[in-house]
Amino acid sequence: MITVTTDFGLRGPYVGEMKVAMLRVNPSAVLVDVTHSVTRHSILEGSFVMEQVVTYSPRGTVHVGVIDPGVGTSRRAVIIEGEQFLVVPDNGLVTLPLKHIKPRKAYEIDFDRVKRFTGWRISSTFHGRDIFGPVGALLDAGHSPEEFGREIDLDSLVRLEVEPKREGDVWKLKVIYIDDFGNVILNLENYGRPRAVEFPGFGLTIPYLDAYGRVKPGEMLALPGSHDYLEIAVNQGSGAERLGLKVGDEVRVRLVQ
Amino acid sequence: MITVTTDFGLRGPYVGEMKVAMLRVNPSAVLVDVTHSVTRHSILEGSFVMEQVVTYSPRGTVHVGVIDPGVGTSRRAVIIEGEQFLVVPDNGLVTLPLKHIKPRKAYEIDFDRVKRFTGWRISSTFHGRDIFGPVGALLDAGHSPEEFGREIDLDSLVRLEVEPKREGDVWKLKVIYIDDFGNVILNLENYGRPRAVEFPGFGLTIPYLDAYGRVKPGEMLALPGSHDYLEIAVNQGSGAERLGLKVGDEVRVRLVQ
Amino acid sequence: MITVTTDFGLRGPYVGEMKVAMLRVNPSAVLVDVTHSVTRHSILEGSFVMEQVVTYSPRGTVHVGVIDPGVGTSRRAVIIEGEQFLVVPDNGLVTLPLKHIKPRKAYEIDFDRVKRFTGWRISSTFHGRDIFGPVGALLDAGHSPEEFGREIDLDSLVRLEVEPKREGDVWKLKVIYIDDFGNVILNLENYGRPRAVEFPGFGLTIPYLDAYGRVKPGEMLALPGSHDYLEIAVNQGSGAERLGLKVGDEVRVRLVQ
Repeated sequence: MITVTTDFGLRGPYVGEMKVAMLRVNPSAVLVDVTHSVTRHSILEGSFVMEQVVTYSPRGTVHVGVIDPGVGTSRRAVIIEGEQFLVVPDNGLVTLPLKHIKPRKAYEIDFDRVKRFTGWRISSTFHGRDIFGPVGALLDAGHSPEEFGREIDLDSLVRLEVEPKREGDVWKLKVIYIDDFGNVILNLENYGRPRAVEFPGFGLTIPYLDAYGRVKPGEMLALPGSHDYLEIAVNQGSGAERLGLKVGDEVRVRLVQ
Repeated sequence: MITVTTDFGLRGPYVGEMKVAMLRVNPSAVLVDVTHSVTRHSILEGSFVMEQVVTYSPRGTVHVGVIDPGVGTSRRAVIIEGEQFLVVPDNGLVTLPLKHIKPRKAYEIDFDRVKRFTGWRISSTFHGRDIFGPVGALLDAGHSPEEFGREIDLDSLVRLEVEPKREGDVWKLKVIYIDDFGNVILNLENYGRPRAVEFPGFGLTIPYLDAYGRVKPGEMLALPGSHDYLEIAVNQGSGAERLGLKVGDEVRVRLVQ
Repeated sequence: MITVTTDFGLRGPYVGEMKVAMLRVNPSAVLVDVTHSVTRHSILEGSFVMEQVVTYSPRGTVHVGVIDPGVGTSRRAVIIEGEQFLVVPDNGLVTLPLKHIKPRKAYEIDFDRVKRFTGWRISSTFHGRDIFGPVGALLDAGHSPEEFGREIDLDSLVRLEVEPKREGDVWKLKVIYIDDFGNVILNLENYGRPRAVEFPGFGLTIPYLDAYGRVKPGEMLALPGSHDYLEIAVNQGSGAERLGLKVGDEVRVRLVQ
């Protein structure tokens, strides 16, 4: 199985080109479209999306991620090998999924070697079709990562800053994702089970519950969400709109036990 | 074959998580994305969409539908077994597809039994990934519905009010769907072949024809659509905008023979 | 492999109906969704999208395209047989993909013959589900085009005007596509490698480079794109917005060597 996560959008030929290129080098591949609507160039959002999918994927799954503002420049294209595979530009996209795949080795992809497999010209603007997609498809077909390039140090991979920060009993958190429903996901895991969540910056305290439907429509709540991060929501409404938040924003939070 | 209809939206990890969870318990499943863009929490719209897809699906197809505003509350999760299978929250979503599958039995899904198959924790906010998706995938793999819960009365299933009402020669109809083109679909079937359709509320009479292109661009018509319901359209325009209608609205209609 | 390109939008049942209809007549088909979000009724845009996908597809691939404002009128439904197959309404959609498949023969689809295979009624509004999809699926399953209709002259196919025009050293080009990123694609191929591109109509000259990242964010450039056409872009911005362009617009361009 190969999952595909991009910011290509759904209107154009790009997703189709990438998928036929993958099936051309591996006709029996099972492709799973995760999303092609990551906010354009938002590496943090893409990293969160990939993390969630990695968490529920079986061993051996290949995850191709293409949020790639640096395409055509000198940023590396990499393969991470662990219990699952990541095939991505080396721009921080690995940060969150890497936590879950027990990474063993990393490789820098050599474009000339990829071209020997695909046979077509490698463009400077579309490495999803020309590099990442085909490499993912070939790994899924049983090729090994070293066929595509030299090993590099796992510690050399670019990583995003996503560790939660703390000042006394106040967490300084980052919005790592806002979903289509407006639910706000913050970079705090393993925080126990508070009674409520206080936002000192907003003069606001909301209950911590286990389902959206536990409060009336239009009311706010915090909850564990379907992942391991702290989530802020409005039942049948948008938490992001209510608090005026977007991905990357900082939020100060106090957990009320 | 398993079809998947949700209101998750296409931007996030949710669709991907659900699909990898399904393929994890049934690696050879053929998944057909119907839509993940049902208007959020619109059970009526979801029910119409599922009905259309059921109509053209072969026997044995499993249809997973997740429009689920009550997730995490006490609403039941159910399987309907007939010529095809429906795996849905018990909130009315079955109403329209149920007409076409010759339902024989219904089952209430027992979450603990699902967990025995999947092995992962069942969240309180994402039953698409944790319950409906895996159960659909396991049914498609040959498991029988009784493995997932106890039989319940088919008549106990929650149903939406979708029967057309009549006063003299005026039908009081409900908008059950508006498509991306703005075509308005009303809950009237088997109405013969009128010459025209009158809207007493709008002082408007439009011809009843068999194709959008039978009127000039910008002109209104009624037509049979691609389903069995009465459809109101504007050639190369939006019937919904023209009449100011949205899903759930009531419209008074007189058929002119 | 069968690719599917439509303007149905992603919200409704239409894409799902078409795909289950295809899998019903060919259960082992591998369906590749290219896009269902071609601008409604934009045959030029659809033709460009199909061309890009054809370019990267292996021999024998079947491409189903349904941008079909004339559905239900007398426009023909056709199959083009070459190194790959096109199954489309005869409205110009073939224009750009036709350049790449070495077409040998064309056929006009006879609806009665299709119905003999599918068994269901052919609607007057949804030939994607009732004609184009099933015919594509049956071709992929090994049926030959002549089973679906009589041969017609390849030269009789409707074609769009897409040849670039020239006045002295000024090209009068047409916008054939604008992608989700706002990159503008013009109908000029094989134009060498200019140093810059001048827009006499805008009093503007921009550099011609090989990657978006070669200019600062917010700056314009021309580049070869991932296809063979001239592309106008703004790094991390929208070329279409900057120049106020939409598909079908004319743009005057001088190449600076």
